[in-house]
Amino acid sequence: MSLDSVLARIDQDMPQAINRLLDLLRIPSISTDPAFADHCQTAADWLVADLQSLGVTAEKRQTPGHPMVVGHIDGPAEASGPHLLFYGHYDVQPVDPLDLWDRDPFDPALEDTAAGQVIRGRGSSDDKGQLMTFVEACRAWKAEYGVLPCKITFFFEGEEESGSPSLVPFMQENTEELTTDIALICDTGLFESAVPAITTMLRGLLGEDFTITGPDRDLHSGMYGGIAMNPIRVLNKILAGLHDDTGAVTLPGFYDDVPELPDDVRAQWQGLGFDHGKFLGDVGLTGAAGEQDRTPLEQIWSRPTCDVNGIWGGYTGDGFKTVLPSQASAKVSFRLVGQQDPDKIREAFRTYLEENLPDGFSVEYRTEKGAPASQMSIDDPAFEKARKALTNEWPRPAAYVGCGGSIPIAGYFKDILGVDAMLIGFGRDDDQIHSPNEKYDVESFHKGTRSWARILDALTR
Amino acid sequence: MSLDSVLARIDQDMPQAINRLLDLLRIPSISTDPAFADHCQTAADWLVADLQSLGVTAEKRQTPGHPMVVGHIDGPAEASGPHLLFYGHYDVQPVDPLDLWDRDPFDPALEDTAAGQVIRGRGSSDDKGQLMTFVEACRAWKAEYGVLPCKITFFFEGEEESGSPSLVPFMQENTEELTTDIALICDTGLFESAVPAITTMLRGLLGEDFTITGPDRDLHSGMYGGIAMNPIRVLNKILAGLHDDTGAVTLPGFYDDVPELPDDVRAQWQGLGFDHGKFLGDVGLTGAAGEQDRTPLEQIWSRPTCDVNGIWGGYTGDGFKTVLPSQASAKVSFRLVGQQDPDKIREAFRTYLEENLPDGFSVEYRTEKGAPASQMSIDDPAFEKARKALTNEWPRPAAYVGCGGSIPIAGYFKDILGVDAMLIGFGRDDDQIHSPNEKYDVESFHKGTRSWARILDALTR
Repeated sequence: MSLDSVLARIDQDMPQAINRLLDLLRIPSISTDPAFADHCQTAADWLVADLQSLGVTAEKRQTPGHPMVVGHIDGPAEASGPHLLFYGHYDVQPVDPLDLWDRDPFDPALEDTAAGQVIRGRGSSDDKGQLMTFVEACRAWKAEYGVLPCKITFFFEGEEESGSPSLVPFMQENTEELTTDIALICDTGLFESAVPAITTMLRGLLGEDFTITGPDRDLHSGMYGGIAMNPIRVLNKILAGLHDDTGAVTLPGFYDDVPELPDDVRAQWQGLGFDHGKFLGDVGLTGAAGEQDRTPLEQIWSRPTCDVNGIWGGYTGDGFKTVLPSQASAKVSFRLVGQQDPDKIREAFRTYLEENLPDGFSVEYRTEKGAPASQMSIDDPAFEKARKALTNEWPRPAAYVGCGGSIPIAGYFKDILGVDAMLIGFGRDDDQIHSPNEKYDVESFHKGTRSWARILDALTR
Repeated sequence: MSLDSVLARIDQDMPQAINRLLDLLRIPSISTDPAFADHCQTAADWLVADLQSLGVTAEKRQTPGHPMVVGHIDGPAEASGPHLLFYGHYDVQPVDPLDLWDRDPFDPALEDTAAGQVIRGRGSSDDKGQLMTFVEACRAWKAEYGVLPCKITFFFEGEEESGSPSLVPFMQENTEELTTDIALICDTGLFESAVPAITTMLRGLLGEDFTITGPDRDLHSGMYGGIAMNPIRVLNKILAGLHDDTGAVTLPGFYDDVPELPDDVRAQWQGLGFDHGKFLGDVGLTGAAGEQDRTPLEQIWSRPTCDVNGIWGGYTGDGFKTVLPSQASAKVSFRLVGQQDPDKIREAFRTYLEENLPDGFSVEYRTEKGAPASQMSIDDPAFEKARKALTNEWPRPAAYVGCGGSIPIAGYFKDILGVDAMLIGFGRDDDQIHSPNEKYDVESFHKGTRSWARILDALTR
């Protein structure tokens, strides 16, 4: 027996593996809508049964929200290898607007496309398809060897798409059970179709939702226009002042805790040949908007940002109303990197805002929680082993990459359990997760499963 | 017989005059809501009957919207005096929010307040109470003299609060009938409670309602934040650039056609002792926001402005969504003065906006009509006669004042009929027109009626 025989079994079993995934995709486990709560239970039951069929001691664990699925299985008696935890989530996004789907989102199917065969349906990529790559790798391994190569804990969540309210309490209450040598998380993507990736940098996030008030009532611009300071004008000036002409954020101290990219990472990123013209062109944009002295990949992976995600004030209906509104509001967010402290950035923003409010104006904040950036230490040899294993499976070498978004789970493993997390996934940019017509390439599913078999082998050899 | 006897009759008849006004106020003639169309007909019928009771040949004239009331009455056979037209409107604003009214808006009543007796009810000040001041002056004159002092045309509109869609066509179709020597319009206010005013400057208005589009779909700020230009950021920068640090509007050529105030008008305005601290303090504001080198009265009466009346973009609901929106929108308006040409200002604004759009961004305009400022020529001796007549009635001398708002009717008389209009009214700033608990001071109604008797006397002597 060898890794090759496991890979061959994966290849041979692929039609059945796809059928199992289609079964799971048929369960409409939308976590954010209470009407689908029973379906979340059903999906958890399905996973418990599937894990049990592999010999895993698995059970559904209730929470105040949707249940967790937790399972454990030992490796060979003689094994000294690491204890691994695998995380995925079985809940999915809502499907609205339904009329933009080409088929029932919960009647999944294989489809032939110009770019190859895909599995179409809600959750196919985010995250049921990804979750099952690991389960299928274990199934093939078990079938070939009769035993998995090391002790493995399975930890599946059902609230990832609705803010994970039960996750931190559950981890805190089950610290001992969930603490392992390393966590594997499959909820990210390939760098591009031929280049697998291990995500080692995740930006943090800070939101500020606020309203400024000037006059104590709406005014008529005929009577007051010219003499009365308009809160929208004040807001525009404040928000426009957040960036300088080079695209840098102007808040004092904003870049204090932003590290420079290590030279080796910079070199690796340059080697990725990221085509930012195409990346932007695909969504109708031309030039890059970030700091002009930074490469496009730095702008989205390793540099902090400031964006206005929402703005409103005055009359916004049809036609015209010559109102000088009493209030104007905005939602501003910052993507954080390195050691940037959300509290310090919040303080800098509020100081700037309040210094620019005219006399007599006030501001009310609706506070949003902030989260710092996560940075995985790749000093653990497991990272380099996994990278080589991925490189062996895919056409081009695997890369350590950043991620502009925030995946809090990685930070939770580190902060609550003291466990480093390795983020490896096989989604593609065009998977349309969170959108109509979500799909997962059969190649992602197939090579993703093979990738996990290779990683299991590399980590336990 | 003399003017004094007319004034005495007005004093004596005041209780009956108030009762007549209360009758008219009970008719809920809300023009903007089709559910009240019958009531608009009823109000017009009431006015026709009341004018007929004075011997006026009056009739209701249907339009595609609510009817006009037009009436004519001759002066004495021997009279060579001017032919006057009097304009007012019988429609009223909606009454929402109803729960903020202290009484049924259409069950009007006299109320004692700390500042004197008031007539409380929708339309009491805007414009039924004002309209009736002129009718009551005519009634007293007729009762004393048996005949009015000159030929008078009455012209009452029922769509002023809903954009006057039928007004221009009706004036164009009845040019000959409506052309007189001068028009009197009673729909403005006192300068302050002791100082009557003739409004001779009305600012024009230009609106721009537009949406800018950047990326062709909403983007996730985790994936695109930093590299993708955010339309809200673009909009903020464009709008923030419309004013410089001194409060002046920055559009090239914006002030080209803005005249300096004549010295005599400037002196008269300085004499008014306008308390801008109180004016702003009453609505919760402190400093004046307009051009710093202009007096507060200039800022609201004789200087042009730029204001954002509405802004919206991105996610504006509860909570947070880290979206980079595809679009951002605003409604911007300009108050125009002097010879500023709405088309030229629109062009300057659009040029500025489009020059500041990043490559690949587009803008869509929802065009709003523009109207230039109106400036009455006070060279006609009738203005000075009326000013002296007002001065005789009120504690302090009457003033020629500006008005920051736009009252298009004055321009229509000039443009369509070639008739100069004199805007004289007796409303006060605290009348709460367009708001709950609208009122009209009994003093405004009483001295307003007496003022018209004096003006009729002065113009026909």
